[in-house]
Amino acid sequence: MFLKVKKSELSAGRPVAILNEKTADKISIHVNDRILIKKNSKKIIAVLDLTKKMADGNEISLSTEITDYLKLKKGEKVEISITAKPRAVQLIDKKLSGKRLNKEEIYTIIKSIVSNALTEAEIAFFVSAVYKCGMSLEETAWLTEAMLKTGKKLNLKNKIIVDKHSVGGVPGNRTTPIVIPICASAGLVMPKTSSRAITSASGTADTIETIAKVEFTINEVKKIINKVGACMIWGGSLGLAPADDKIIQVERLLNLDPEPQLLASIMAKKLAVGSKYLLIDIPYGENSKVTKKQALKLKRNFEKLALYFKIKIKCVLTRGNEPIGNGIGPILEMRDIISVFRGNGPKDLKDKSIFLAAQILEMTGKTKKGQGIKMAEEILYSGKAFKKFKEIIKAQKGNPDNIYNILKLAKFSHDIRASRNCKIHSIDNRQINMLARFSGSPADKSAGIYLYKHVGERAKKGEKLLTIYAESEPELKNAIDFYRKNKIIIVK
Amino acid sequence: MFLKVKKSELSAGRPVAILNEKTADKISIHVNDRILIKKNSKKIIAVLDLTKKMADGNEISLSTEITDYLKLKKGEKVEISITAKPRAVQLIDKKLSGKRLNKEEIYTIIKSIVSNALTEAEIAFFVSAVYKCGMSLEETAWLTEAMLKTGKKLNLKNKIIVDKHSVGGVPGNRTTPIVIPICASAGLVMPKTSSRAITSASGTADTIETIAKVEFTINEVKKIINKVGACMIWGGSLGLAPADDKIIQVERLLNLDPEPQLLASIMAKKLAVGSKYLLIDIPYGENSKVTKKQALKLKRNFEKLALYFKIKIKCVLTRGNEPIGNGIGPILEMRDIISVFRGNGPKDLKDKSIFLAAQILEMTGKTKKGQGIKMAEEILYSGKAFKKFKEIIKAQKGNPDNIYNILKLAKFSHDIRASRNCKIHSIDNRQINMLARFSGSPADKSAGIYLYKHVGERAKKGEKLLTIYAESEPELKNAIDFYRKNKIIIVK
Repeated sequence: MFLKVKKSELSAGRPVAILNEKTADKISIHVNDRILIKKNSKKIIAVLDLTKKMADGNEISLSTEITDYLKLKKGEKVEISITAKPRAVQLIDKKLSGKRLNKEEIYTIIKSIVSNALTEAEIAFFVSAVYKCGMSLEETAWLTEAMLKTGKKLNLKNKIIVDKHSVGGVPGNRTTPIVIPICASAGLVMPKTSSRAITSASGTADTIETIAKVEFTINEVKKIINKVGACMIWGGSLGLAPADDKIIQVERLLNLDPEPQLLASIMAKKLAVGSKYLLIDIPYGENSKVTKKQALKLKRNFEKLALYFKIKIKCVLTRGNEPIGNGIGPILEMRDIISVFRGNGPKDLKDKSIFLAAQILEMTGKTKKGQGIKMAEEILYSGKAFKKFKEIIKAQKGNPDNIYNILKLAKFSHDIRASRNCKIHSIDNRQINMLARFSGSPADKSAGIYLYKHVGERAKKGEKLLTIYAESEPELKNAIDFYRKNKIIIVK
Repeated sequence: MFLKVKKSELSAGRPVAILNEKTADKISIHVNDRILIKKNSKKIIAVLDLTKKMADGNEISLSTEITDYLKLKKGEKVEISITAKPRAVQLIDKKLSGKRLNKEEIYTIIKSIVSNALTEAEIAFFVSAVYKCGMSLEETAWLTEAMLKTGKKLNLKNKIIVDKHSVGGVPGNRTTPIVIPICASAGLVMPKTSSRAITSASGTADTIETIAKVEFTINEVKKIINKVGACMIWGGSLGLAPADDKIIQVERLLNLDPEPQLLASIMAKKLAVGSKYLLIDIPYGENSKVTKKQALKLKRNFEKLALYFKIKIKCVLTRGNEPIGNGIGPILEMRDIISVFRGNGPKDLKDKSIFLAAQILEMTGKTKKGQGIKMAEEILYSGKAFKKFKEIIKAQKGNPDNIYNILKLAKFSHDIRASRNCKIHSIDNRQINMLARFSGSPADKSAGIYLYKHVGERAKKGEKLLTIYAESEPELKNAIDFYRKNKIIIVK
């Protein structure tokens, strides 16, 4: 069937064709069918959408992905015909029915996701399949390989590359900007990529971005590493495992994060930067992403996967029942970090950073077993770590001599105080995150929460428990309302 | 945040807002997030999509659903803010995690589907949840009720309404246009709605459409029923269970059809027309939708559901291992039907139609148990059924005196003949369907397959096994190629 091209401004991310409902009925095709669009000998497969609103039944509206590819002008004619579902769809069906996939089959699915050949609903079926049917270790390894193969790589030659990752779920917890400089000071190469906040109040990339740039090309990253031995950048712009980004987009709809996908996602990104040593921090406990049992399972599976990929791994289980550090929000967290370098930061943040750095120093043989803490402390307390931090910030186009001027707190603030003498019983991680988001974080870099007390500490009547910072009065009010309506800090 | 409206031609079926990626990054919102769009005091919730291509970061592109609702002009300013996920999304997550839903929760999901508040990916998660976690009988009943409640109803007063349904999967098998006139001749009221082909070569609605109209409003249907006691129309245009149509759209991506959804979908549509008696035909066996075991389970669940809704049901299991009738394709099937009325149609089609009609006549008390076949035969052979058929066709704006002139076969045809003396061992239902679709059916009403032999019959060398009909030479060639490449009829 020949149809007249109606140009559309729609840039759908994938080839999409929109047809009048009646026309589609006539030729018996339906929403989400794949159609083949031909102009002379050039062809492209598009996903079909229908509309009641297109006046002319002989017209077809095409997204820019198609008009660009086929070089179509308005009013030109194209031929359309029905075409089969992509093989990836059959394979997703296979997985959803509970069967195992082989290496080639998993690669086919991931390649289709990366090339935008699948709709979000099809990716949702894939996520459901992995969530409900699980994946064997082999399948998870193949998933990792497929993500790796369909993405870019950072080829750093002849270096022993080390990486760390936290499974997340704990507000604050900004150890990376302390751990990386300590380890890099000891001579380790650490091309650290981080995420931005998705549902949290800040991601490591958001926090670093308060004082430096975090978006670089692969080549720029290489230059930074060659110069200062480490970086602390946003992973999203590098295209290391683009399949993962698209899968996460769909997972977020339901906040799903099936374990095989989590494992493959982390591992693929670490392999893409060439890591040979990997430290995984798995915070567990009430209010964290995982229970202790799940954390142990995750640890075992990370270890198996690392064995498959021949990298040295260490997984540490850490307590994740409350925020780590005092600040929650990009600038508030960066202030904590700088304070740690200056010797007066939050103890929990400093201790955890030293602990993590120690693990890395020991596993890479920079020091003997049992000596890591001592070495990390020495590097931190001597000022070497802060020096390295400033070098990295400078390499990332920041101005390390002007840090404190930049790190201004938000204009509006409100203190929450203890209504009686009490002891902090618990702090709800998810609610603290929400509270910081209501205050404007991470969009407003200077917004967020400052916590004065941690679990187990005592507060006197009238003493501050936390301060909410916001860049506007309505946001401050929203956050205060949210605090009042929810049980965020429980005292006893 | 205030943004300038850029009008979009996009009619997405639901409110969709498209934002520049950078702008979204800045305010920390992501693809598929819900955003609240405000103009003065009027608000609407939209699903967010992102683009790299929008030049101006202060602009927002809105689908017509939004611009119409908020009465927006190009260049006007709207305020956007982040808003929570709809409750239905949390409930889908609950179901996907394996928990049961209560009546109100299922209603919330279905209502959100009908009001277009959910994305296709979210509906895909719902389908996966029902597919992988199943539903209790109570949940299935609530799903049925929710579909019923969110759709239109055909209110026929003071009538005993009877319906039939086939679970499908068998090519040809066009019993409805024979059963309905037989039963209506006996005085039963049968407001039969059917589907169009989705993946098959023809649906009952496609077949009826060769000689009559099948799209009517609820009021027109009432008039037809009041006049001739029955109809044979397309259900899609009536809006009887609109949630079902949207769910099916997503199920089709993977050809999934989870049992609870199948049960609820059929039952809701039958309840919507007011059925008090219901005959379900469940074809089973090799190449059918269900095995005998699955058929028996389906029967039990249909019976339980009918008990819940206080309607009288009879489920019959019929052999579904090969096509029924000789024609496959809208016109070819209608020719079979007319032949049955004239006394010389395919025996298998005639026998099955009489059997099904007999069940209905007995269950509704039109005749005694064991006398149904005799009564159905008498109505068919006497010409009463054909007379009623013509009345229905006329009421549906067809011309029953001109039927054979309309039912012309396609111009191009090709015979497949036996290459040796043989016996037909099996005929592949799915492949026969595909073959008919390759020939152009159901889009080309006169295209399709004519089968000369059924399973168990003998063919001499050179005798015709089937004829392929097509409206163009390329389609005929495609179909012949498909026949040659696949094992469609196996002979021994």
